[in-house]
Amino acid sequence: MKLSEISVFLNGELQGNPDLEIINVGKIETAKRDEISFISNPLYEKFYNNTNAGALILSKDFEIKNNRTDLSVIRVQDPYLAFVSVVELLTKEEFEDETGISDFCSVGKNCELGEEILISDFVHIGNNCKIEKGVKIYSNCSLGKNVIIGENSVLKANVTIYNGCRIGKNVIIHSGTVIGSDGFGFAQQSNGIFKKIPQNGIVVIEDDVEIGSNCCVDRATLGETRICRGVKIDNQVQIAHNVVIGEDTVIVAQAGISGSTKIGKRCMIGGKVGIVGHLTICDDVIIGAAVGVSKSISKPGIYAGYRAKPIKEELKQEAYIKNLEELRNRIIKLEKNK
Amino acid sequence: MKLSEISVFLNGELQGNPDLEIINVGKIETAKRDEISFISNPLYEKFYNNTNAGALILSKDFEIKNNRTDLSVIRVQDPYLAFVSVVELLTKEEFEDETGISDFCSVGKNCELGEEILISDFVHIGNNCKIEKGVKIYSNCSLGKNVIIGENSVLKANVTIYNGCRIGKNVIIHSGTVIGSDGFGFAQQSNGIFKKIPQNGIVVIEDDVEIGSNCCVDRATLGETRICRGVKIDNQVQIAHNVVIGEDTVIVAQAGISGSTKIGKRCMIGGKVGIVGHLTICDDVIIGAAVGVSKSISKPGIYAGYRAKPIKEELKQEAYIKNLEELRNRIIKLEKNK
Amino acid sequence: MKLSEISVFLNGELQGNPDLEIINVGKIETAKRDEISFISNPLYEKFYNNTNAGALILSKDFEIKNNRTDLSVIRVQDPYLAFVSVVELLTKEEFEDETGISDFCSVGKNCELGEEILISDFVHIGNNCKIEKGVKIYSNCSLGKNVIIGENSVLKANVTIYNGCRIGKNVIIHSGTVIGSDGFGFAQQSNGIFKKIPQNGIVVIEDDVEIGSNCCVDRATLGETRICRGVKIDNQVQIAHNVVIGEDTVIVAQAGISGSTKIGKRCMIGGKVGIVGHLTICDDVIIGAAVGVSKSISKPGIYAGYRAKPIKEELKQEAYIKNLEELRNRIIKLEKNK
Repeated sequence: MKLSEISVFLNGELQGNPDLEIINVGKIETAKRDEISFISNPLYEKFYNNTNAGALILSKDFEIKNNRTDLSVIRVQDPYLAFVSVVELLTKEEFEDETGISDFCSVGKNCELGEEILISDFVHIGNNCKIEKGVKIYSNCSLGKNVIIGENSVLKANVTIYNGCRIGKNVIIHSGTVIGSDGFGFAQQSNGIFKKIPQNGIVVIEDDVEIGSNCCVDRATLGETRICRGVKIDNQVQIAHNVVIGEDTVIVAQAGISGSTKIGKRCMIGGKVGIVGHLTICDDVIIGAAVGVSKSISKPGIYAGYRAKPIKEELKQEAYIKNLEELRNRIIKLEKNK
Repeated sequence: MKLSEISVFLNGELQGNPDLEIINVGKIETAKRDEISFISNPLYEKFYNNTNAGALILSKDFEIKNNRTDLSVIRVQDPYLAFVSVVELLTKEEFEDETGISDFCSVGKNCELGEEILISDFVHIGNNCKIEKGVKIYSNCSLGKNVIIGENSVLKANVTIYNGCRIGKNVIIHSGTVIGSDGFGFAQQSNGIFKKIPQNGIVVIEDDVEIGSNCCVDRATLGETRICRGVKIDNQVQIAHNVVIGEDTVIVAQAGISGSTKIGKRCMIGGKVGIVGHLTICDDVIIGAAVGVSKSISKPGIYAGYRAKPIKEELKQEAYIKNLEELRNRIIKLEKNK
Repeated sequence: MKLSEISVFLNGELQGNPDLEIINVGKIETAKRDEISFISNPLYEKFYNNTNAGALILSKDFEIKNNRTDLSVIRVQDPYLAFVSVVELLTKEEFEDETGISDFCSVGKNCELGEEILISDFVHIGNNCKIEKGVKIYSNCSLGKNVIIGENSVLKANVTIYNGCRIGKNVIIHSGTVIGSDGFGFAQQSNGIFKKIPQNGIVVIEDDVEIGSNCCVDRATLGETRICRGVKIDNQVQIAHNVVIGEDTVIVAQAGISGSTKIGKRCMIGGKVGIVGHLTICDDVIIGAAVGVSKSISKPGIYAGYRAKPIKEELKQEAYIKNLEELRNRIIKLEKNK
């Protein structure tokens, strides 16, 4: 694609060679003559001088000290978002051809199958499922009965969806992830032996959600576990029964949310965070990596620590702990001077 | 089903309309006229006044202040257990019809297949396996050679069982779980390169065990890794080689038990707990969420903290840390008054 | 196999019955007359007196106090490594027969298939893949397009490899593991909604790597995520996009490495460790279990603590915390004596 075309696509301002043929995107450190890269983070500004890329996307404010005539640039408002769009533009074709229903899949009775879908090899789909237009289901996925997959959603290989779960539109679920397995619920009987509590609810995943690989989202005991519109979940995250995750919240890898906890909108839950059950986390809360949350949070802000607290308190506490040796020395001095 | 029938089933005491037709169970907040719910936790007592459920299960002691003529009740000893039984009663039929051997599965040589089993699509079963009566194996499961699955056990979709592992009766294993992968054992050679130690043991899972999704239970290096009768394991739990988990122990999501550790009976291991290898945890130990256990535990009780200690010690330590500012201020005062 | 043959194989020194027929290896506590075991750890020396094994592998220095005429021994330099070799010797045959291409697999167009390979039931292989000589792919694996699997590598059942990923020689990947799922990258737009950043890179796994079950190794955003030669990874480990793991490094279960972090050679990363993104960990670093690493590490050594620090500092800090009660008492005493 010609650089001029990319510039028009980005609604950018081109300085340099409009006819330069760009075939790929690249990291600024390793990009080649026929690749385009970008500078967004100031730490990368130094690479302007020696990148081998043919073109760079820069912000309108980016100040060039030593102008390079061999390097074309496109000026835009937000170079990072523009670059993401170029990546999409140049790679769109790769998946476009993948539609059709494999001869080696198994589709149950009374299923509704939309147009332009992919059902790949060894996919099992139970009875009464609805697979909407444009859906792609890659190999070895297993869908139970009464499952709905909304328009243009993608299930990568080896995904499992249990009976009755409902997936919205434009959802991406990565391999190994399990949606709708039983919530962890047992009632201890008088003899100490646990009796399974049937898990009769479902999981609802709203539109525009992405879930990483090897995650678990358990079905509700009664009612539903709900992942709201726009939520992004990394790999190996555990979402227990009856949890609700609010719109546009992000959850990083290996976090775990226990049963019946409600998380607000636009939260950022760090990697390895653990949140105990039956809590409420309000909107716009940021929880640092590996933090343990055992109480509800009702004020937006940043929380940190082995036991979650506002980050200022945590940093203060850490400073006090770091100074314990000095504190002890001051006590020794006082004792001597007594 | 008529409410009177449910009351007889529960051996309960019915007050209200015996002919009320109940078709489902519901949460007390959202239940409808044709649904039954329950009150067990005092926090939910307030819902008596405004639930839309047609009937409630209550304890014999539950005191009704404003009697509602539109709401029938069944009185029992333990409303929670009774409710669990009703859930089972009303949902029993859903899975009953699922038996048969798919045309799209692959069963190895010399396998013994019991009656009334389900082997669903794209299930691979190796040679010399024994699948006992009433077993259900859902789609895309893979069983190695010489595997035994005991009566009425259920493998949900996408479960993997390696060669030689033995699963007891009435066991449920959820999707994505791997039983019998190699223990993590390597011997460092003089040149620093690791040599794999062959993992020749097996995994034995006793009766009445439930294991969540995306768990791993590694085979023993020699001998066996053993999950004893009645153990309940949540999602994403890691059980290393040669571990033994005692009867009726419960392990919450994302916990990890390292190699050769033995855990007693009736323990409760919290979410995200890590236990290092070669330890012994005695019976009746409760370990809080996200606790790290690096020493054996020989006294029943509750343990907490980033490094496990009896919960009283942990709470005391946390209180001391919280008071560090005050402690420092007292030192400053002493220094001034010197 | 005769004990004399085993001794010759080990280049050992045999004392006892050369004609003893050994059919298996065993743990010293439970081994039988026709089994061989070993003593390496001094804690196990006491078992010399009462093991039922027919033969033991001992170090050249092992001092026998009460010689047992019913127990043969083979003396070697390193009994543990020797034992590992015997385990390999006696169990080699089990898997040898498993080759062939199942009638129930699906291989895409333009694939190159080497000799003596296994492609088991319900394996899906996309277009343009290269499966080299001696590779074994067990049931229900899914390989995308343009995947390369190097000589003699093994994919256990239910493994997923995304488009374009390259696996080296003699690699073992256990069940449920996902190689090449999308890195977790989203750009927040001005309206707060996240836009997916296409993940166009790949994963490269070099020779002699072993990866446990239910792990995730994400593809790079651009370029590659790389697991270098000889790395050993336990179960449920998360490796994010653009990470590099250096040669012969070991990563224990449930650890997570965030995006773009580079880890050196011969490191040992403990179970449940979390390492934040964009860090550099130098060669020969040992990180204890459940440690959180939020800064780069440039000095080899052992690191511990909820926030990683050199282990000496961590132990000192823990000691100070443990003594807080005593410290407070000394302040109280000073206040009284004022």
